[in-house]
Order: sequence, then structure tokens, then C-alpha cells
Amino acid sequence: MELQIPKGTRDVSPEEKIAKDKIVNTLKEVFELYGYAPLDTPILERFDILSSKYAGGAEILKETFRLKDQGKRELGLRYDLTVPMCRYIAMNPSIKMPFKRYQIGEVFRDGPVATARYRQFTQCDVDVVGSSSMSVDAEIVALVYAAFSKLNLDVVVKVNNRKLLNDILDYCGIQKEKQEPAILSIDKLEKFGTEAVKNELKEQNIDDKKINTMMDMIKIRGGNWEKLSQLKKFLKNSEGLKEIEELLSYAENIGFAINFDASMARGLAYYTGTVFEGLLKNSNVKSSVCGGGRYDKMIGAFLGKGSCPAVGISFGVDRIYDAIAEKQETNKTNTKIYVIPIKALNESMKIVQQLRDAGINTDADSMERGPSKNLEYANSLGIPYVVFVGKKEMEENKVKLRDMKSGKEEMLNLNEVIKKLNSQAAQQS
Amino acid sequence: MELQIPKGTRDVSPEEKIAKDKIVNTLKEVFELYGYAPLDTPILERFDILSSKYAGGAEILKETFRLKDQGKRELGLRYDLTVPMCRYIAMNPSIKMPFKRYQIGEVFRDGPVATARYRQFTQCDVDVVGSSSMSVDAEIVALVYAAFSKLNLDVVVKVNNRKLLNDILDYCGIQKEKQEPAILSIDKLEKFGTEAVKNELKEQNIDDKKINTMMDMIKIRGGNWEKLSQLKKFLKNSEGLKEIEELLSYAENIGFAINFDASMARGLAYYTGTVFEGLLKNSNVKSSVCGGGRYDKMIGAFLGKGSCPAVGISFGVDRIYDAIAEKQETNKTNTKIYVIPIKALNESMKIVQQLRDAGINTDADSMERGPSKNLEYANSLGIPYVVFVGKKEMEENKVKLRDMKSGKEEMLNLNEVIKKLNSQAAQQS
Repeated sequence: MELQIPKGTRDVSPEEKIAKDKIVNTLKEVFELYGYAPLDTPILERFDILSSKYAGGAEILKETFRLKDQGKRELGLRYDLTVPMCRYIAMNPSIKMPFKRYQIGEVFRDGPVATARYRQFTQCDVDVVGSSSMSVDAEIVALVYAAFSKLNLDVVVKVNNRKLLNDILDYCGIQKEKQEPAILSIDKLEKFGTEAVKNELKEQNIDDKKINTMMDMIKIRGGNWEKLSQLKKFLKNSEGLKEIEELLSYAENIGFAINFDASMARGLAYYTGTVFEGLLKNSNVKSSVCGGGRYDKMIGAFLGKGSCPAVGISFGVDRIYDAIAEKQETNKTNTKIYVIPIKALNESMKIVQQLRDAGINTDADSMERGPSKNLEYANSLGIPYVVFVGKKEMEENKVKLRDMKSGKEEMLNLNEVIKKLNSQAAQQS
Repeated sequence: MELQIPKGTRDVSPEEKIAKDKIVNTLKEVFELYGYAPLDTPILERFDILSSKYAGGAEILKETFRLKDQGKRELGLRYDLTVPMCRYIAMNPSIKMPFKRYQIGEVFRDGPVATARYRQFTQCDVDVVGSSSMSVDAEIVALVYAAFSKLNLDVVVKVNNRKLLNDILDYCGIQKEKQEPAILSIDKLEKFGTEAVKNELKEQNIDDKKINTMMDMIKIRGGNWEKLSQLKKFLKNSEGLKEIEELLSYAENIGFAINFDASMARGLAYYTGTVFEGLLKNSNVKSSVCGGGRYDKMIGAFLGKGSCPAVGISFGVDRIYDAIAEKQETNKTNTKIYVIPIKALNESMKIVQQLRDAGINTDADSMERGPSKNLEYANSLGIPYVVFVGKKEMEENKVKLRDMKSGKEEMLNLNEVIKKLNSQAAQQS
């Protein structure tokens, strides 16, 4: 038998998992600080939910893993956490609005495999359902800054508004039915450059002159308020401009800087208003580390009754991990101390138990290997301290503590070891 | 479109998810205290791995969800976390032994749906690979007691040994080839009673006399050491008895009580030595809340070279949740305070930001609803405190804090609110 994992999937080693858990815990903490409640939905969904015309759309459906249960029911592995949330809301009409939830979970896409593109990956979403106030959009921006500040990463949040993009396209005389594909082309500006996007727009049968006017407007320069006042000269009564203005005011009010970028579009068709994107400064991770926006029509359509405002953002745990791993050494282990018995297994087991009772993450030799093999093992796992329990130590009612980094050894009683380890833990947190 | 979730799956509401997260975090904390490192493996595995003859076996394979990727590769959803761990170890020969890992994740079984039997559920495993010392088995018992003590549940751990069961069956003259099915029948003793098991054994063509002798031996009464010394009269040089004796000595040495029960078998064929089971005292949850054992042959067979000792235990998060939910009120929310602006949205947003900066989980009205609607909303979510921000309050540079339980209101400045909420949090933790 060939030992392999499925194409496009990966194992997460203890060292990587420790770092990922730290990121996810930090995000959870910030989500709860901002009043979001956790939700969990099954990894399996009925295929008719995933393929509903209000869901993710034809492109994503091509990448959906399909299967049947024993009762021949058509199922699929979820490709995101937004569609399951909409289904949950529709199935639970007594939910109080606004509904603020976060969800962290695995999603699946059976697409082409490339660097940093996997068939199973972790999504980390926050969404507010039921409020159309721009103060909520501003709160999400604040949450993004709080999260990255806790992660010790330097982020900048770009915002734009889909209604504003539509207003600009209207102003340039681009017909309504051409606007959605045009916006999806504009989304590629940063990745492929101006010429490539112009060519795509030409292929969509849009006049050169219209394309050029449009480009001038979306690539407008200056500070946020400067850009707004320039665009106002062309666009009268633009709801998109009004929303951006409101969002910027709220953000300034609570002290957060946003970068208004009229050329930012985001790749999904379902956005209806604000779109956001978070990018790292001073990092080799150039792609966005979070992104989202307002999608006021999706849930209402799903519910089959009226509209239901919603706005959310998704964090890319894997890219955040890459950005952290390039900057700082990750912890190889959460174990603080490794106990080596020298012909004193029973005594050693008691000491291990006392260390654990004192809240210190402790591991111990169970193989009765010699000291040098044990030191090699503790060193390879990256455990910072080793304790020797031998006859001499037992007679003195002490243990020998070795600092694995400096190699320094000292004879201490157990309370002194506990005190030392606990004071170090307090310094690090 | 009919809105449904797949048969045998369920959504986890915020209230349930808060309680489940608490259980999982407590288990993680104890696992790390005992020196286990986290591991993660894909939910998808190649079907040939899952169906390997060294894996879970024919019964479980009937319940395995199967699917194909776009490249027509045969895949399956994992049915446990043990087989993926064995695959991981086999694919990473440089792993240092002993390898102590924990893994928490979703597993899938397309079996009959019943109360507390789901097609997707959470497994929570710890395993030690590479050590055959009974001190490791004793450590796992200590870990179980530590975990349930932190969960405020009263557990008793029963142990037995598969080698001992084989020795007993040998003594009774039951042939080797009849022993595995006989042990799987003995596993049903507690559930279906003595008569049912005797009938099953008769159907396996075992003599009445042999069955009766065997029953007398496994149902032996008395304290642990009493049982051992009685069984020793019949069984000379039983390795199973020796192992149990060793395990009991180690457990006594570190101060944990175990209940040796010679009739306990556990339902899986692959166990080779110690088997454990944790049962709750003073609870309506009568099924085991954790269980596992030693499986010294599985990984070696998987590796295709020699034997590799391993022992592990799996915690049932859902049953633990049931046991906690029946005893104590679960937290409906992690939000501590809800801010209601009265025509003061900008001022209120600043106050919300300051509360969050102080580390207090805060939510706020974004709908500009009236005070009574907002109080109703905060009450329905179970948020313990509400703060009103209005003109009068702003003039006095204060806010009105309402204790939602007592209904008591007081005018405080923001620092006083933060102090009050933080001191409460300190008391609760």
C-alpha cells in the first residue's frame, strides 16, 4: 500500500499546529471582544443547498466535492461558511436580529492545486446579519485592526463600495448588464495591471473612451476626503459615495485609519455595498489576509422573503501563519519541562504529578533510557528545561534542573522549580 | 427549495457552542499539561488507507462516506483519528519516539441514526506511540481524572487487560480462534446482561461448562488486590495479570484510584493489552464518557515493519456536554455588556471602543432602536449588563449601568464601569 494523503490536502505538524492554534485563539478572543457569538454547522451540506441559485454560484459549484449517503441523498462538502450560515438563519426564524456570529472551520474546494491553494483549508468568518448601519461596517474595520495588533502584524484596511463602482460605470455610460462582468475585471487590476484589465473590458465590448474615463475615476489619487470630493463633482446623489463617507466618519470617530481605494472590487458577484480588504505592511505576504463586504440581498433571497442586510469578513489563517512564521520563531512545543528518572521511576512519577498539579506542562521519560539519549530527545522537541531525578537528588530531597539553552544546572527543591517556571511563564504572557 | 441539513448531522447553536468550546479548551489544557502535542490531519483520506486491513475493519468500512475527486481518486471521510495518526507516523519516519499527540476533530460514520448517534461527531484523542511501559497507561488514567476534575464531573476509571481475558479464556479451554468473537460478546455484558451474553457464547459453540467457569472468573468480586490474588490462584505466569498489577501499583504511587474490572472488554478487535473506560458518578449519562486501550500491533502492521507499542484514549465531547448541561446552567453568551445609545451614536461608539480596549466583551445597538426594544434584545441574549449613553449622561461625563438580573441602575463614569466588570470577571475565573 502506498502511503499518501489526498491531493491538495496536508497534515499539520505539532509545531505548525501550535502556531495555528495561537492565531485562531487570538482571533476568537477578538471576535468575542467585539460581541460575536460562535456557531458551528456540519461539514456536510445537502447538495441542493450548496447549489441553490442564491448560494456561491456556478464557478464554485464546479469545485464542490459531491457524495451520497446510504439513503442515496445528494450531499456536498461545504465550500464556505456563508451559505451554511444563511441556511441556519432561514431554518431558525426565532433568531434575534441583529445576529452577530463567528465561525471557524474547514472548507473544501476541489479546484486546481497550487502554492498556498489547497483543497481543504480553514475559514475564519465574522458576520453581522440584520443591520444596514454603516456603523457596523466601521466596527468590522476596528475588529480587523484589533486582531492584527494582537497578532503583532501591521495591517492596512482598504475599502470601497460596490454601489459607488456601479455609479461610476453608470456615469461613464456603461450599460447595466455589462457592469457585473466589468467589476469582476476591475478586481484583477492589482494582480494583472491596467493594460490587461483594459483589454478584458474591450473584449466585453466597452468603448475605449468609456474605459479611459472609468479608469481615470477609479484610479483617482489623494487622501480619502480629497478623493471623495473629486468624485462628488461627477457623481450627484451617489448612494455609494454617501455610504463611504459615512463609513469613513465612523472610523475616524473611533480612531481607525482606512484607505479608500475606488479601484478595489473583490471577486465575488454577491457584494452589494462596502467591500474591504486587509493587506500587511512590512511582510512578504502580498495577498490580502482578510476580505469581505456587504451582501444585503443573499440572505433575503435564501429566505424567500424580502431583503436582509448582512456584512462580514473572512480571515485567511494560512496566510497569517505564513506572515508570522517569516517574522518570528514559532514554538516547537508547549511542554515546559521534561523529567528524567535515573533508576527512580516511582519517585519521578510523583514529581511529574506535582509539577502538573502546579499547572506546569510536563513530560517525562517512560522508556528508562540513559541521560544522554533523554537529553537528546528533550532537545529535539525543543523543551526548555530538564529535571533529573536520581538517588543523590532524592537523598537531598532535591532535583537537578537543567536550562537546555544555557546548559546551566542547579540543585533545587521542587517548590523552587515550580516558582522559577511559573515566574517565567508570567513574564512571557 | 426545502431547507434541511443532512440526516444525522446537526447545527451547534451559539449557546451550545460556547459550552462545547469550554469543554474542548479544558481538555486541550489538560492534554498539554500532560505533555501531549497537537496534530491535525485532513478530513479527507485516501480510501485505500481507510480500508487497509490494518485499519478500522470491515464493520466501520460499511459506514464510511466515500467520494471521488476531479481526478477520479477514491477518497473517504475519516471515521476516526487513529488511522490518520498511524498514516502520519508511517509517512514521517523522522518523528522522535515516544510520540505523544492529541487531536480534536470531526469524524464521520454513515450508520444508523439514533439518539446521541450522529453521522458527524467530534473526537478528542490522546495517544502515546513508542512506549510499552505501564507507567504510560497509568499516566493516561491520571490524565482522565485531571480532565474530569477540571470539568467538575465525578469520574471513575475502570481498567482491564485483553491479555488477561485471553489468559482466562485459555484457562477455560476456549480455543484461540474462538477468543476474539467471545471477547466482543463479553463486551456486551453491561448492556445486555449475563443471560444474553451466555446465549451469544453458546451460539459460538462454546460449552456451557466453559462459559460458566469463564463467567465466574471475570465476574470475580472484591477490592483490586483481592481480585488479583484470587485470579493468580488459577493463572500462573499471566502477562495480563502482571501488567494490571504494574498499572495498579503505578496508579497508587501517584495517588489515583482505579477500578479493576475483569469483565470489561471494549468493542474493538485491535486492543492488545490495557483497556480503559471512564464512567460518571452522580449523572444521568450512563454510557462511558471516555474509553481506549493499548494497541501494540496496529502501527507496526501499518508501517510494514515489526511492532510499535501504542496506547490511547478518546473523550466523548457530546456526552460530556450532556452531563454538564444537566447539572449547570450553560452561559448563553460570552458578551458582558451591551451599549444602548440614546441619540448619541458617535459618542456611544467611542465608549464601546474604550470598553473593548479594556478587554471587556462588548456589543452595542447599531439599529437605533428604542431603549425598551434594546433591553428586550440584550435580555434575550442573556447579556448581564447594559449601558445607556444619552444626552444627560454625556453632560455628566457618565453612563447609566443597568444590572440585567437585579434591574439595579447606577450612574458611573467609564473607569468605574470597567473596574466593576473586570473585578467581576476576576471573581468568576
